[in-house]
Amino acid sequence: MKSKICAGVYGGSGYAGLDLVELLWRHPQIELAFATSNTYAGDSVPGTNLHYVSPDSVALENVDVIFLALPHKASAAMAKRGMDEGVKVVDLSADLRIDTPEAYERSYHSPHPHPELLPRPYGLPEINRENVNGADVVATPGCYPTTALLGIYPLLVTEALCEDSPVIIDAKSGVTGAGRKPSLTTHFAEVYSNLIPYKTGRSHRHLGEIEQEAHKISDRIGPIIFCPHLLPVDRGLMTSIYVTLNEGLESDQMHDLYSEMYDDEALVDVLPAGEQATLRHAVKTNKCVISITPVLPRHAHITSVTDNLRKGAASQAVQNMNLMFGLKETLGLI
Amino acid sequence: MKSKICAGVYGGSGYAGLDLVELLWRHPQIELAFATSNTYAGDSVPGTNLHYVSPDSVALENVDVIFLALPHKASAAMAKRGMDEGVKVVDLSADLRIDTPEAYERSYHSPHPHPELLPRPYGLPEINRENVNGADVVATPGCYPTTALLGIYPLLVTEALCEDSPVIIDAKSGVTGAGRKPSLTTHFAEVYSNLIPYKTGRSHRHLGEIEQEAHKISDRIGPIIFCPHLLPVDRGLMTSIYVTLNEGLESDQMHDLYSEMYDDEALVDVLPAGEQATLRHAVKTNKCVISITPVLPRHAHITSVTDNLRKGAASQAVQNMNLMFGLKETLGLI
Amino acid sequence: MKSKICAGVYGGSGYAGLDLVELLWRHPQIELAFATSNTYAGDSVPGTNLHYVSPDSVALENVDVIFLALPHKASAAMAKRGMDEGVKVVDLSADLRIDTPEAYERSYHSPHPHPELLPRPYGLPEINRENVNGADVVATPGCYPTTALLGIYPLLVTEALCEDSPVIIDAKSGVTGAGRKPSLTTHFAEVYSNLIPYKTGRSHRHLGEIEQEAHKISDRIGPIIFCPHLLPVDRGLMTSIYVTLNEGLESDQMHDLYSEMYDDEALVDVLPAGEQATLRHAVKTNKCVISITPVLPRHAHITSVTDNLRKGAASQAVQNMNLMFGLKETLGLI
Amino acid sequence: MKSKICAGVYGGSGYAGLDLVELLWRHPQIELAFATSNTYAGDSVPGTNLHYVSPDSVALENVDVIFLALPHKASAAMAKRGMDEGVKVVDLSADLRIDTPEAYERSYHSPHPHPELLPRPYGLPEINRENVNGADVVATPGCYPTTALLGIYPLLVTEALCEDSPVIIDAKSGVTGAGRKPSLTTHFAEVYSNLIPYKTGRSHRHLGEIEQEAHKISDRIGPIIFCPHLLPVDRGLMTSIYVTLNEGLESDQMHDLYSEMYDDEALVDVLPAGEQATLRHAVKTNKCVISITPVLPRHAHITSVTDNLRKGAASQAVQNMNLMFGLKETLGLI
Repeated sequence: MKSKICAGVYGGSGYAGLDLVELLWRHPQIELAFATSNTYAGDSVPGTNLHYVSPDSVALENVDVIFLALPHKASAAMAKRGMDEGVKVVDLSADLRIDTPEAYERSYHSPHPHPELLPRPYGLPEINRENVNGADVVATPGCYPTTALLGIYPLLVTEALCEDSPVIIDAKSGVTGAGRKPSLTTHFAEVYSNLIPYKTGRSHRHLGEIEQEAHKISDRIGPIIFCPHLLPVDRGLMTSIYVTLNEGLESDQMHDLYSEMYDDEALVDVLPAGEQATLRHAVKTNKCVISITPVLPRHAHITSVTDNLRKGAASQAVQNMNLMFGLKETLGLI
Repeated sequence: MKSKICAGVYGGSGYAGLDLVELLWRHPQIELAFATSNTYAGDSVPGTNLHYVSPDSVALENVDVIFLALPHKASAAMAKRGMDEGVKVVDLSADLRIDTPEAYERSYHSPHPHPELLPRPYGLPEINRENVNGADVVATPGCYPTTALLGIYPLLVTEALCEDSPVIIDAKSGVTGAGRKPSLTTHFAEVYSNLIPYKTGRSHRHLGEIEQEAHKISDRIGPIIFCPHLLPVDRGLMTSIYVTLNEGLESDQMHDLYSEMYDDEALVDVLPAGEQATLRHAVKTNKCVISITPVLPRHAHITSVTDNLRKGAASQAVQNMNLMFGLKETLGLI
Repeated sequence: MKSKICAGVYGGSGYAGLDLVELLWRHPQIELAFATSNTYAGDSVPGTNLHYVSPDSVALENVDVIFLALPHKASAAMAKRGMDEGVKVVDLSADLRIDTPEAYERSYHSPHPHPELLPRPYGLPEINRENVNGADVVATPGCYPTTALLGIYPLLVTEALCEDSPVIIDAKSGVTGAGRKPSLTTHFAEVYSNLIPYKTGRSHRHLGEIEQEAHKISDRIGPIIFCPHLLPVDRGLMTSIYVTLNEGLESDQMHDLYSEMYDDEALVDVLPAGEQATLRHAVKTNKCVISITPVLPRHAHITSVTDNLRKGAASQAVQNMNLMFGLKETLGLI
Repeated sequence: MKSKICAGVYGGSGYAGLDLVELLWRHPQIELAFATSNTYAGDSVPGTNLHYVSPDSVALENVDVIFLALPHKASAAMAKRGMDEGVKVVDLSADLRIDTPEAYERSYHSPHPHPELLPRPYGLPEINRENVNGADVVATPGCYPTTALLGIYPLLVTEALCEDSPVIIDAKSGVTGAGRKPSLTTHFAEVYSNLIPYKTGRSHRHLGEIEQEAHKISDRIGPIIFCPHLLPVDRGLMTSIYVTLNEGLESDQMHDLYSEMYDDEALVDVLPAGEQATLRHAVKTNKCVISITPVLPRHAHITSVTDNLRKGAASQAVQNMNLMFGLKETLGLI
């Protein structure tokens, strides 16, 4: 390996791509070789001395790792190319997150473009670190699954959830979560002063991903009810999680459980008992911040927040990359 | 009675008071005689040709009705004075909403200033119209209870809720809900771009009010888990309600139930199946807008929204006043 | 004439069109027959019992007046059709605002589609009422020209401006001013927390319109320096105007001049001396609100605000329509 | 000198103080010893392992430099104490910015509390670096003067301004500029969706400071017309400056002039011709960003933006401190 890792970003002009570029540009072990953009090819890449290049114009021979911040389907094709050329791949799309082509098709309503690529390690290091270490290809989870799964992980591991009761996830996301492509949904005047539930019921694509990963940890969990909302802010994601516990744990023991379980995690903060996690705790940080509120002995309210573009996308991709190359996991992130 | 009803507003410079003044000023059967303000006495009352007067300077002999948009405790004292002088009273504070002094003290952590005034009709006309008709004194419910109770009322009446499961109310309120008194909590730079859970667990004062009224309709309801959030907008209130049904009702029957039950209610809109209620549906209207989303056969998600200053305060007060004087309930409101 | 005026709105799903529909729907002398939308044909028109129709499907035989809230060029073609069919036309586009095809081409960089239609009365009633009264076709001015011209009109009429000094117009507009068509410019995440000067120098299309109308009143005016900014709010438009006076007037006489000149104008408010016009003074009203601040004897600062969708578009169109049909000018507007 | 400079912050819980703490905490040559707060004494200092201390409880014997982010008057008293104890002082208040007690009293309407301290170097390094180098006490300019003066400095140095014409400064500031003390002015619901001119005419305190410093560079300048506005965002400050040039310079030469003059300045960016400086160019950076727009040969529009809490306060204070101790000027800032 060269002294620095040579990295490229595909989809470097979207919101996640822009944060990725910012993080990689100042990462001490990374040399950022290129960032692609179809729309902005030729324009300068903000905060760097690079110019966007067309994805087709890039040669990968000297590249060690590529980050894919592309739409799903386009991402799988590029992942395949990277793998074929012996380059490590950190995928931020959904294409490698779902374990089977069948499950992918259920959530994304069209066949997986490269089913032979599945399954791949699910890059949520706090849960799945051992599979990411040294891997060549890693799927970086979406913002909702990251925030929600870290919010319930200690209850899954300890099998403390009541199986007969749903886990309610009322989620609120800043508008960058909807991508940079203009649409009426993201028009300023439609979002401003508003709060909009969307893809309710069981229709949001991230629900399958949450269920898949939750059930890998434990099957002792009731149905997950997931309702996302579009929040009139630019970035930040809050999941408000309401759980019912079984007899194994009382709600006022949860704070100790979470504190202990995340004690060694540099990128997860459990707030002191009585403090509430707000959006601002996480925005522009690379952390997931969690607060625990016992409500009744068997009922609790957990607030888990991230920056949807950081721990929900770009910084988690860098965290995975660090592990894939055997670097310190938090290098360039704290 | 004189040709027009002569009305006065106490606390006319707070946010609810300002909306109340606006609604009463254009109400066809009301002559607004005065609006009080300690802070702004002498200043002109926005949108009118009145000037704020000090509350102490007002005589009530020619007044038919007073609206109290005062802090709790101050409100009870003024309600008593109004009653003593034979004036009808529409109270917007909490002082007359709780049925017993004991329950009041539990929620408000100090003795009720005038326990002899309790109980009074709870002015949520869609639920409780018969007690408001012709009454002399009515307590107008708070914004959270109004929005939440209208969101679950059809399930309470039909006893369709599973008693063993909690009713989850994840609520989000615009900043005017916190009042006009300056504080760090309402400082622009603290709220902007943020989302803040507050008074979580069982600590919010409105929880007792919600429970009291829900249980009057039916005891077949599990524990209510209520978590409010401060939303970075000026007005509007959304309650996201997650319910578990018993065997008596499937979630895909709920839309018909709600549509039928609210069919005659001019100030409650049930959206067509598949549409989601957003904050903007209710802001600057006098309505509660509700959407129903079946998630699983026994699980559903209800979104109920109001303008916290209108159906959550001022317009509901006017609606009550209309009923107290035998006017058309929606006069001046649609 | 039928008992009510039968009106139609072309372009009824854009932001100005939506406000127009709202105003016409509750106008006591109007029966709104249709609102067109290419994008939303078939959908219900918010706040009404109508459904959007395709513009091609509309017959005009029973229609008295059409409002054109269309893109420029499309508007001229429709205006021509309306005129040919004997229907009155209130145009909200730029197509009929510019007096000559040559001037139009200078500002809009393409030939006027129907030069034979020019010139038409410029529908800023406070300045130009006599030309609007009873007219068959009226061009409703843009939001920037309306707000700016009302802000300097008294100085133009009295020829009080120093000809050697520029008139500086620093303008700030809410995002609805940029239209409802999605673009990166209006993407929530691009506008939020930002403030963006645009079309600076002499490049904004409204500059020619402001100059044309100012010079009709008086040639004794220096160059107009106009700089618009995109403000992170949904609606409202502020022009901050900095003027140098000639010897004929001192800045502390301006407040009297403005107060007198606008004394009879129901839709222009001159604030008391010392008060500043804020965006909120005008938003959701049909008024232009003006404050005057003398700075030095020959220098003054004028703030003129409107709601860009109301007095800057829809309500001014209705005001013009009232005059065109001989109705009370403010009918349906106050 | 010890290996690291030992620093303390007075007023560490205000908005400027919080940014100062953040910058000093990660500054490679600073050891932050304490941050004071009357209101929050005992609470933890965000982002650090310190706790706020009461200002009275601090001993200065081992301290090398204190930063004063205090209200004016309180600041002068603390500056005096620091000087008496031989500690370097970086003052962020107005107390040391004005050269004479008389001028101070004109702007602040009360006598200077310690007239013997005046005058002190005005710490705008790009203009005044030589006086800051090695100084013991430096006054850090306010946000408006910094942003405005950097915007016109090249025209002052080259005496290119027309003396008979005013310099118009239309300024817009985020709400943190108004401080953290709660007031109705900074209440979320008053600012949201609004735009508010304030302290217009000649009443804003920063006007005298701008005039004082401009005239030190050149007397060939007309009157300064300064109008600030409160912008509904949390941070960022834009000055829109409109100038008239004399015969010595044409507006299309300005871009070269500015580019050259600021070429070596790491903390001032002149954008390429044709690009406009937006608020976002500066927010959360330590830079002043400037764009130049020629409008007519003698008239130009300059946009100068900063983060009011950074280059308009905290980062400029650190920049000054670096110079006072002979460190690299941009240490800890880029």
